[in-house]
Amino acid sequence: MNNKVKLTFIGGVGEIGKNMTAIEYEDEIIVIDAGLTFPDDELPGIDIVIPDISYLLANKDKVKAILITHGHEDHIGGLPFVLEQLNVPVYGSRLTLALLENKMKEHPNVKLKTISVKPKNVLKLGHFTIEFIKVNHSIAGALAFCITTPAGNIIHTGDFKIDYEPIDGEVIDLPRFGELGKKGVNLLLCESTNVCRKGFTMSESSVGKALEEIIKSHVNNRIIIATFASNIYRLQQILTLAEKYKRKVAFTGRSMINVSDVASKLGELKFDRNNIIDIDKVDKCDDKEIMILTTGSQGEPYSALTRMAAGEFKFLKIRENDLVILSASPIPGNEKNVYKVINALYKLGADVIYDELADVHVSGHACQEELKLMHSLVKPKFFMPVHGEYRHLKTHKELAMALGMEERNIILPSLGMQVELSPNSIKQVGFVTAGQRLVDGIGLGDMDSNVLRERKQLAEDGFCVICVSINNVSGSVTGDPFIITRGVVYADEQEAFIQDAKATIIASLKEQDLRGMEPAVIKQSLRRKLSNFIYKRTGRRPMILTIVILD
Amino acid sequence: MNNKVKLTFIGGVGEIGKNMTAIEYEDEIIVIDAGLTFPDDELPGIDIVIPDISYLLANKDKVKAILITHGHEDHIGGLPFVLEQLNVPVYGSRLTLALLENKMKEHPNVKLKTISVKPKNVLKLGHFTIEFIKVNHSIAGALAFCITTPAGNIIHTGDFKIDYEPIDGEVIDLPRFGELGKKGVNLLLCESTNVCRKGFTMSESSVGKALEEIIKSHVNNRIIIATFASNIYRLQQILTLAEKYKRKVAFTGRSMINVSDVASKLGELKFDRNNIIDIDKVDKCDDKEIMILTTGSQGEPYSALTRMAAGEFKFLKIRENDLVILSASPIPGNEKNVYKVINALYKLGADVIYDELADVHVSGHACQEELKLMHSLVKPKFFMPVHGEYRHLKTHKELAMALGMEERNIILPSLGMQVELSPNSIKQVGFVTAGQRLVDGIGLGDMDSNVLRERKQLAEDGFCVICVSINNVSGSVTGDPFIITRGVVYADEQEAFIQDAKATIIASLKEQDLRGMEPAVIKQSLRRKLSNFIYKRTGRRPMILTIVILD
Repeated sequence: MNNKVKLTFIGGVGEIGKNMTAIEYEDEIIVIDAGLTFPDDELPGIDIVIPDISYLLANKDKVKAILITHGHEDHIGGLPFVLEQLNVPVYGSRLTLALLENKMKEHPNVKLKTISVKPKNVLKLGHFTIEFIKVNHSIAGALAFCITTPAGNIIHTGDFKIDYEPIDGEVIDLPRFGELGKKGVNLLLCESTNVCRKGFTMSESSVGKALEEIIKSHVNNRIIIATFASNIYRLQQILTLAEKYKRKVAFTGRSMINVSDVASKLGELKFDRNNIIDIDKVDKCDDKEIMILTTGSQGEPYSALTRMAAGEFKFLKIRENDLVILSASPIPGNEKNVYKVINALYKLGADVIYDELADVHVSGHACQEELKLMHSLVKPKFFMPVHGEYRHLKTHKELAMALGMEERNIILPSLGMQVELSPNSIKQVGFVTAGQRLVDGIGLGDMDSNVLRERKQLAEDGFCVICVSINNVSGSVTGDPFIITRGVVYADEQEAFIQDAKATIIASLKEQDLRGMEPAVIKQSLRRKLSNFIYKRTGRRPMILTIVILD
Repeated sequence: MNNKVKLTFIGGVGEIGKNMTAIEYEDEIIVIDAGLTFPDDELPGIDIVIPDISYLLANKDKVKAILITHGHEDHIGGLPFVLEQLNVPVYGSRLTLALLENKMKEHPNVKLKTISVKPKNVLKLGHFTIEFIKVNHSIAGALAFCITTPAGNIIHTGDFKIDYEPIDGEVIDLPRFGELGKKGVNLLLCESTNVCRKGFTMSESSVGKALEEIIKSHVNNRIIIATFASNIYRLQQILTLAEKYKRKVAFTGRSMINVSDVASKLGELKFDRNNIIDIDKVDKCDDKEIMILTTGSQGEPYSALTRMAAGEFKFLKIRENDLVILSASPIPGNEKNVYKVINALYKLGADVIYDELADVHVSGHACQEELKLMHSLVKPKFFMPVHGEYRHLKTHKELAMALGMEERNIILPSLGMQVELSPNSIKQVGFVTAGQRLVDGIGLGDMDSNVLRERKQLAEDGFCVICVSINNVSGSVTGDPFIITRGVVYADEQEAFIQDAKATIIASLKEQDLRGMEPAVIKQSLRRKLSNFIYKRTGRRPMILTIVILD
């Protein structure tokens, strides 16, 4: 009997975001997660980045299901685009699926088929048997998978941390990981986000304690707390504290309103509905009776908190008696935006507490000691670190080796890599097409570096268009050349600049015999002249476009 | 007698970078520092940002001198531009002035007049007497000032930390701060960079110890260390370790070569010249005999380390036996670039050690306990926090109040603020023109938000130019319209896009009677048509330029 299983790494390896892995046996494929990531400066104008699923589309008939570990964007965000091309059932916890359904409202053309699962559930899909295992994370309903295959057991941890004092009362199912380890785990796929951090990630409940101290010492202030909407446990603690300290709660920010609604309907978030007020009623309440729960903890440009900081939030104006708590850490790349918001809030007179000043946030990911515990419980034969930038995967490999694992039993996955697993071996067997699909406006394009390079050049230096009409017979210039610039010359220099540029161009054209000359040749000469003129004048090399009209 | 002194805050308050403060008594002004800062995403295409010195130019005849605390860019970087308009003597330590002279080589038109000073020196400038005081910082030659004025003593700390085990053997002159405190300090201007951090900043010498452990455990590796070129103490420790462990040193990166040269000529950096080799000789040495000191610890795009990581560095190729140490922390905003470099180095097979993994960097700024010590020694009557974003100034104010200072004796400076100090009072008296001057290419422009807005739009959405010739008499379109786009359409859609856009435009023009129509009206209609066409097609709104030529 064939006992070889193939794993294909479609995303989330060697970078953060857009997680996606396929596990394949003969004519069956199951997929784990389908995330998105947000573009950085290298991708100007791009809205989101999703995995390239060419491999799955080429094997469309094999794909049986997509299993989702939890409801964060980097695990579910790619689904609307993936399901459009690959409509298969989606399995996940109730909250994960509720968040997905909410997201799919914007994609009504996709017919969504979801099946909800719980920890300890066992699902049979063809030759695969999947057991769902409770893990702790910064969102409720997070699951790890133990997938029994003809090549042995594969454990995929998803994102996790170990929380001995979790808000929902359910500690990660460490005994089950240990039991599976005893039975034999052939391959561990383990997340790597915090592998560079020593020690343990603190319990989510430690944040509640810190917040309570702050609330107790600010009884007369209006309190505004910004956090990740998806962190239900954080919301739960804040809502409980609000009730305890007799403050009404107003939710603001689209995702905060959506997620709190979805989670409370599922019973994942428990609070007294009478204690909730609309944000437009906040101004009528006493400061000490109110608590506002808002989005914008990452300084996102159009979020509620950013608008408050800019004085552009309709329902409330920040003032001296406000205490703003950012219950979050800046995600790398967001630091400057977050600090801008903090500075602006201070300037409006508010007091601000954030992670540098107090312990108002904990991570949702396992640090080194937690990862060591996972490895020690599962004791896999083979190991592949996932979910992280390359530096995380590499450090995770070193961690596994420090625990006694042999280097030859570890493979560092990379984008598109295919690995063949059998009961006694693991080996890299090749690469498939994989990478980034860029969602740009309403289009879904391949990465076309030209367009992005153009946008980058435009951002740095602007552009200049020159349009000249030439009589092909006489070789003389008809009328005045048009010169338009954008992003090149500052207002007070604009007029003189255009005048001098025109004079330069006309003088240059007069020097040449243009009769019968090819437009391409004229264009090239114009471009060179103009580029040199602009460089001398401004020290810049804007993009130059020439239009030559032959009468 | 008039005993009122005016302080004007021209930069470095409420933001990091471009520090500059003026102290004025009757017809005398002395200026402290003249820094620059680097622009963020909000200022596309801008090269550097310097203070707006309108106030000083309006009082040109009063300005007697510029005193520099130390040689970092955010304290000296604005000088080439300031001195061009305001040529006064510059006072600073030998190293500060040597770095300034080096920088001024690129501005040969400015005649530089420098006077070097040492700790304990006392300088009389009109009614001001300035005493220079040794402080520790991440660059050699850092000074604080005690300025005796008719309004009493003003202490300006400059940037500092307290290092009990400094590399140059000279601890910050704490006794002198205490002595001055005893005599009476009227106003303290104290830096605020690390005021949000608890505890003490570790000694610079702790980095040497960590680096030595790493070097000892990597005897067979080629070692490449990236750090800030201006951190002479770091360079000194690395050079000493290289000699101890019998490794030759190659410097690479422009600022590393410049600074090491300048500092060694001054005797601030001591090493055996025979132990230095050129970077192009590195390939001929045994890995274990070599150490490379490079720029690029911030992942700067064209730095030597970034080029090594990209495989584009001429003199050496990164390979498996390389150990790269980033002896620096990412400055906020640089995280992503730094991690990209680290990932790329790992992918080339190198081992990488950076601040998350080992204690290979310390800050040059005082943390909370050090700031408390400074306040307790100086015991000023009045206090103004400087050098920091607004959040830092605000937290520094709270720190001073926790030490017992009364709120009414503290003023938070902001850009352009003028403060009047007398022996018994301090008060804000108004604001002068101040802000950012943007250096863009070779031009020095006012902040013209139009150009920057254009660049931002171009970066997001690109642009489209349409050029149509119309016979004014017949009202018919002559020839084919030209349509050019950049940054809008992906390559494979380009041809169909242009064709359909042209058809749309021609159809729209045919519908109208163009005879005698104003070009402005035609342009507006064209722009609207094209914009709608593009939005439908791509979901984007690029900048649209129209050229209408009337034959």
